[in-house]
Amino acid sequence: MNKPHTPARILHRLEVSLEDRSYPILIGTGLIGSVAAWQPFVSPGQVAVVTNDRVGPLYLATVRAVLGELGVLPLEIVLPDGEAFKNVDSFMQIMDSLIAHHIERKSLLIALGGGVVGDMVGFAAACYQRGVPFLQVPTTLLSQVDSSVGGKTAINHPLGKNMIGAFYQPQAVLIDLDVLASLPNREFSAGLAEVIKYGAALDRAFFDWLESSIDRLMARETEALAYAIERSCQIKAEVVAADEREAGLRAMLNFGHTFGHAIEAGLGFGTWLHGEAVGCGMVLAADLSVRLGQLSVQDRARLVDLVGRAGLPTRPPGWPAQKYLAAMAHDKKAQSGEIRYVLLQGLGRSELKPVGPDTVGETIRALTGAAAH
Amino acid sequence: MNKPHTPARILHRLEVSLEDRSYPILIGTGLIGSVAAWQPFVSPGQVAVVTNDRVGPLYLATVRAVLGELGVLPLEIVLPDGEAFKNVDSFMQIMDSLIAHHIERKSLLIALGGGVVGDMVGFAAACYQRGVPFLQVPTTLLSQVDSSVGGKTAINHPLGKNMIGAFYQPQAVLIDLDVLASLPNREFSAGLAEVIKYGAALDRAFFDWLESSIDRLMARETEALAYAIERSCQIKAEVVAADEREAGLRAMLNFGHTFGHAIEAGLGFGTWLHGEAVGCGMVLAADLSVRLGQLSVQDRARLVDLVGRAGLPTRPPGWPAQKYLAAMAHDKKAQSGEIRYVLLQGLGRSELKPVGPDTVGETIRALTGAAAH
Repeated sequence: MNKPHTPARILHRLEVSLEDRSYPILIGTGLIGSVAAWQPFVSPGQVAVVTNDRVGPLYLATVRAVLGELGVLPLEIVLPDGEAFKNVDSFMQIMDSLIAHHIERKSLLIALGGGVVGDMVGFAAACYQRGVPFLQVPTTLLSQVDSSVGGKTAINHPLGKNMIGAFYQPQAVLIDLDVLASLPNREFSAGLAEVIKYGAALDRAFFDWLESSIDRLMARETEALAYAIERSCQIKAEVVAADEREAGLRAMLNFGHTFGHAIEAGLGFGTWLHGEAVGCGMVLAADLSVRLGQLSVQDRARLVDLVGRAGLPTRPPGWPAQKYLAAMAHDKKAQSGEIRYVLLQGLGRSELKPVGPDTVGETIRALTGAAAH
Repeated sequence: MNKPHTPARILHRLEVSLEDRSYPILIGTGLIGSVAAWQPFVSPGQVAVVTNDRVGPLYLATVRAVLGELGVLPLEIVLPDGEAFKNVDSFMQIMDSLIAHHIERKSLLIALGGGVVGDMVGFAAACYQRGVPFLQVPTTLLSQVDSSVGGKTAINHPLGKNMIGAFYQPQAVLIDLDVLASLPNREFSAGLAEVIKYGAALDRAFFDWLESSIDRLMARETEALAYAIERSCQIKAEVVAADEREAGLRAMLNFGHTFGHAIEAGLGFGTWLHGEAVGCGMVLAADLSVRLGQLSVQDRARLVDLVGRAGLPTRPPGWPAQKYLAAMAHDKKAQSGEIRYVLLQGLGRSELKPVGPDTVGETIRALTGAAAH
């Protein structure tokens, strides 16, 4: 797809400001195949590229060629694709390979893939010999606008998503827009869910822009995509700089995620894509916000409409409320047994708040279409 | 052994200075059974105590009673005892239990046990929901003077010790001298190995004091022990404050450990105690220092004598040099394929330096009594 020496076009360069852990995000075209784009982050020495068996065939040869130009022969670790493999077995497979190949503490890991690869390789980088540097090269829209930025790394546990992980920042994030051309529609829409999240929870002007640009985005117009990704990364970088370890503001990035995780866990990870579950989760959280009197019915309708036009599900699986509540009891935002939700206060503003099971049950029954018991 | 309301006697209080990750080390008697000693670090809420099946029967009832006085009913996780269980399976057993019991992100983990428990629970605390607070309550001399202080946490991999871990600091370290009374001789000596290390590698005056006090220490006199532990923790705290992530000075704390790890790995973890391997490793490193002309034959003899009087092995397993070199190639201090060793420059001073396999082989052959090939 990309060839070495493709001239890279860097459209945007952002900085995540975290003192000695600060790092750049480069957004552009032709980056994966560009020696110049990689050069600042790769020094001669040991490098391990970790990818999956879907992304590897598309980009690994290009990455290998570029690294070769930089004098590096990388160790290549190819994992099975899918959220179902974001587990301790895959994590240990990475460890086994790094140790067996004598990869040292100053070596560089490269996460080449979507959010699953990025989260898992980031966690492996955090833990291998107590921490080695790593690069994020996200190859899905979702990982470009969300998981590759901010240093949250993790693997799943059978009883809960992202339960085992670390806050660990990459050296840089290389976002190549070219990869979006070949992305399946479902995955593209899943990425838009997180883009919509930034607007709905944190930036009303961006929400307005998304409403008026959703058709251009769905047509994958480069200019619209570049702006949507830049603005998403900007918002995320600002939030992370203000609150790296999720003491407060950062929790707002979880808008739609508490319900979303319950859906993913209930269906079995990987049945719905993460972004699909988040899209539907935002609809649930918006409905809950309306019930608590802090969001207008009109604004809820605007959000539901945008989620639907982005090709995302707006109707949750028809389970009893109890099933949702039980799944959410494991949520990392839970405190003293209370489940806390990110709620909207109008479009573009949000807050983290505990809500009792009765009100949450009303929302679930209303949207699943189940009768009250 | 301890009863709740035993009056605690805090003999020393040190501080590990790491900005917002600073924490105190309390050294005293009667601490485990003292509500007052625990109170500053335990707030009402969820607490999980992790221990092993040897330490648990000795102290768990006391800890449970003290926590009960503080209004806490802890989750108790009891793992099998021994270095052989410092692995990913035990780590996942902790995770399984924390998740199954809905332990939340603001909960406290307590590591009650020796170095294996401390390292593993520290790593679990670092990873569970991306980080929960934890307390170190070390119950062996070795963990009191070494592994409980400084934030190095890890589990072993079949191919290498401590290969998977994190730098993660506890909220506090509670060192109760009473636990040393019941410690088996072998374990007590293993702890002295790390005490001797501080003197030999970093503090000549402390080395002199150890030489003149070794009989009182071997008799487990409280006053001598309290000073040896305080001085060891002080040296470690200073080194860690200056170099948390082992960029330089901190590596000196690995004096004797490169050879030591090779011995442990070669025999199978748990055959020799860690401290026994380190004791013998110091003898090897001192011999290497003599061969490189930076330590006198007399000073080597003083170190070998002190290691022996501490009840530690001074003669390494009789393997060919190649077996040692292969095991050390996995060392975390290796860089660009070169094995680096902490070497003495006289007693009380050390440096990290690569040494070629020929000279290392001479040392190994000299001490194992093998003829040159």
